Amino acid sequence: MSAPKQRERLVVIGGDAAGMSAASQARRMRASDEMEIIAFERGGFTSFSACGIPYWVGGTVDEMDRLVARSPEEHRTRGIDVRTRTEVTDVDVAGGRVRSRDLDSGAEAWTGYDRLVIATGARPLRPPLPGIDAPGVHGVQTLDDGKALLDTLRGARGRRAVVVGAGYIGLEMAEAMLHRGYEVTVVNAGRAPMSTLDPDMGRLVHDAMTGMGITVVNGTAATAILTGADGRARAVVTDDAEYPADVVILGIGVRPETALAGEAGLPLGEHGGLLTDLSMRVRGHENIWAGGDCVEVLDLVSGSLRHVALGTHANKQGQIIGTNIGGGYATFPGVVGTAVSKVCDLEVARTGLREKDALAAGRQYVTATIESTSRAGYYPGAGQMTVKMIAERRTGRLLGVQIIGREGAAKRVDVAAVALTAGLTVEQMVNLDLGYAPPFSPVWDPVLVAARKAFRAVQAGTRA
Amino acid sequence: MSAPKQRERLVVIGGDAAGMSAASQARRMRASDEMEIIAFERGGFTSFSACGIPYWVGGTVDEMDRLVARSPEEHRTRGIDVRTRTEVTDVDVAGGRVRSRDLDSGAEAWTGYDRLVIATGARPLRPPLPGIDAPGVHGVQTLDDGKALLDTLRGARGRRAVVVGAGYIGLEMAEAMLHRGYEVTVVNAGRAPMSTLDPDMGRLVHDAMTGMGITVVNGTAATAILTGADGRARAVVTDDAEYPADVVILGIGVRPETALAGEAGLPLGEHGGLLTDLSMRVRGHENIWAGGDCVEVLDLVSGSLRHVALGTHANKQGQIIGTNIGGGYATFPGVVGTAVSKVCDLEVARTGLREKDALAAGRQYVTATIESTSRAGYYPGAGQMTVKMIAERRTGRLLGVQIIGREGAAKRVDVAAVALTAGLTVEQMVNLDLGYAPPFSPVWDPVLVAARKAFRAVQAGTRA
Repeated sequence: MSAPKQRERLVVIGGDAAGMSAASQARRMRASDEMEIIAFERGGFTSFSACGIPYWVGGTVDEMDRLVARSPEEHRTRGIDVRTRTEVTDVDVAGGRVRSRDLDSGAEAWTGYDRLVIATGARPLRPPLPGIDAPGVHGVQTLDDGKALLDTLRGARGRRAVVVGAGYIGLEMAEAMLHRGYEVTVVNAGRAPMSTLDPDMGRLVHDAMTGMGITVVNGTAATAILTGADGRARAVVTDDAEYPADVVILGIGVRPETALAGEAGLPLGEHGGLLTDLSMRVRGHENIWAGGDCVEVLDLVSGSLRHVALGTHANKQGQIIGTNIGGGYATFPGVVGTAVSKVCDLEVARTGLREKDALAAGRQYVTATIESTSRAGYYPGAGQMTVKMIAERRTGRLLGVQIIGREGAAKRVDVAAVALTAGLTVEQMVNLDLGYAPPFSPVWDPVLVAARKAFRAVQAGTRA
Repeated sequence: MSAPKQRERLVVIGGDAAGMSAASQARRMRASDEMEIIAFERGGFTSFSACGIPYWVGGTVDEMDRLVARSPEEHRTRGIDVRTRTEVTDVDVAGGRVRSRDLDSGAEAWTGYDRLVIATGARPLRPPLPGIDAPGVHGVQTLDDGKALLDTLRGARGRRAVVVGAGYIGLEMAEAMLHRGYEVTVVNAGRAPMSTLDPDMGRLVHDAMTGMGITVVNGTAATAILTGADGRARAVVTDDAEYPADVVILGIGVRPETALAGEAGLPLGEHGGLLTDLSMRVRGHENIWAGGDCVEVLDLVSGSLRHVALGTHANKQGQIIGTNIGGGYATFPGVVGTAVSKVCDLEVARTGLREKDALAAGRQYVTATIESTSRAGYYPGAGQMTVKMIAERRTGRLLGVQIIGREGAAKRVDVAAVALTAGLTVEQMVNLDLGYAPPFSPVWDPVLVAARKAFRAVQAGTRA
């Protein structure tokens, strides 16, 4: 006589992409009488697109609700007990329970789990500068951040915005503020915008942004935010200048939000993210999984662990976690470091290693940079693009690609992402059978032109 | 004492993409005192984009000259002796010489060669129908064809165009004639437009074309072209109807132009194309190469030979031939069958095997069809697309992808083209690190959504 089947309880910490993908997938695989699913979310929303916030702030997306893929109510009707505005304050690994606090009532409670998913996301970097907490200084990580920023814009006296940081968020917020009719200054600590690119490619982004009327100040960090008599931010100060601001936006980057996990004794990596195996199970913990912006992932090109905060990975990892918890089997093999973005009509894409990553990984390399167009040169709307390709010396194996250009540039990086995943050489890439027709590509696709030039560099380097 | 180095002579037959790419690459590698290069071209132009003709006829490209990448004069200044309006009428393989005829003077001459490149291209199918040679019936293969068609349009009395054939040329010419303000009827022998797609996907093209105001008649072949009292085409006749036409455009397909090669005893395949090895050397002939629309190529997915007339392959093969003739080493590994096209704002793409190709190759398969969008659903301009994926049963290896949709659909097929080249499974594709940002993709790229569904079908089929 077998024992009656116990109803398991799955607890999820974090109600955004990774957490709710995991919960939803587990629910698809396991009925409510087999598994109870409770999800704790500190904020008021679930399953929203943080990546969409700049477009909502800029007015390209008209309503906040459009960024919400699935509300708490929708999750509840699907059998997931979502508890919003409820923060998990402790994870008791030995006891198999979490302590939560209702942010409105202050009430605390312990909830036991059979399986736990940690999907606490990332937190924006917020350097301890004088004035950083003043009204008028905004991050853009959550929907509440977006609301607060829009409130500031509605009440702003002037039209000067200073964006601190020139990564993806910085670029996208620069565009958003231009759309809102602001004069935009970007204060950037790096040598050029987009430190995820090599500086020579970042320089192209700089020049294009300048051409859009954005003031880009490189090589200088914000040291303070000055406030006015009303206590509101009025300028961003750097070592050698002061930039008047009616609104300040922080886009300096993010770090894994793993304070809770760290206090619970779960293993963290050198970037501060949770360490998991390929099934997204936290190392050394049979019944705890983690995914999304709070984990480190394997970089398939360098072989080392990285932190990459991107909704697309969070969704995939969540689904993998849910599949494994539901009794299936799935793994997340790793990333190659693909990212795309845009600032107005300039598209920016990268995948794989930069030169400095290759050096750090001990890989000798050659580079090739070419210019081409998104369509046949004679076809209207053909956009210019620059493609930089990095290949390993001698073996010719593709190491990385960066693309800067106009319409049709960014998603071409996907060809390189697949090639990196498959371990292709640039010689193999030269003859890739990519789609050709005049409205879509020159007869040699720009990626192939770059591969051809990189292959010649490999040949020259092999002789050397 | 070594013999003085002999100056070699390279003869090229055909002055378009493959021939002139071969000549140009050979010239880059071998100086004029080492190698004389003579290129014979029957027409008046060299290195032109036949793929661009529909856009010139439709008025999207304003001048014919824009389709010419390099004129005969430009080639001559680069040390290639181009002889236009000169047709090669015989290849004497044993004697190592070709006979040519000046089309203006009628003068004939023999020219010896050390190395020969055959790049005679393809000829459009022109069924022997009554009236097919009447004025007002046009192919769109050469720039002269385009000129003649534009002359007809300038003199046309009415605004009714009938396009015979619904492949790439048929679609592109339907668009061109719509742009010119014509009422367009497409007469198509197949069950649905685009026989390079599965019929279920072709049906989507049909519906979209109908929505554009194009009359698409499927399952019926043209049997005759009626002419008026002036001798000009006035209607296209099928088994059961008659379609009035002020202009008739033929887009039925092409076959390798290999009459000359066949008469010379060179090896032809079952599709009528020249047979070469991977270095593009004609099989069994040490000093003869062939490339472009006149050869058969290896299909890397099915393992069989195909005929694929596409400028992108012609250019690559020409460059490979030139490299090998110049003393280097390069190979053309084969194709996976990628093609992209559009009719107005509908994009059409395919790569790999259709269902019937898989059946013919003895491959059991599963299919998955999904609908998604080109951008995040909330981002303006997100275009709908349908992605069909075919994967091998049990192994899950990708066999083919077809995509129909609006802006941003077609070039997504490149991801599948690389995956096919690398032999990836659909499971491997689910976690591909493709570029994600709201203006460029939903958080799950449509190709990944299709891969995920195909993987589930593989799993279900594996259990069966």
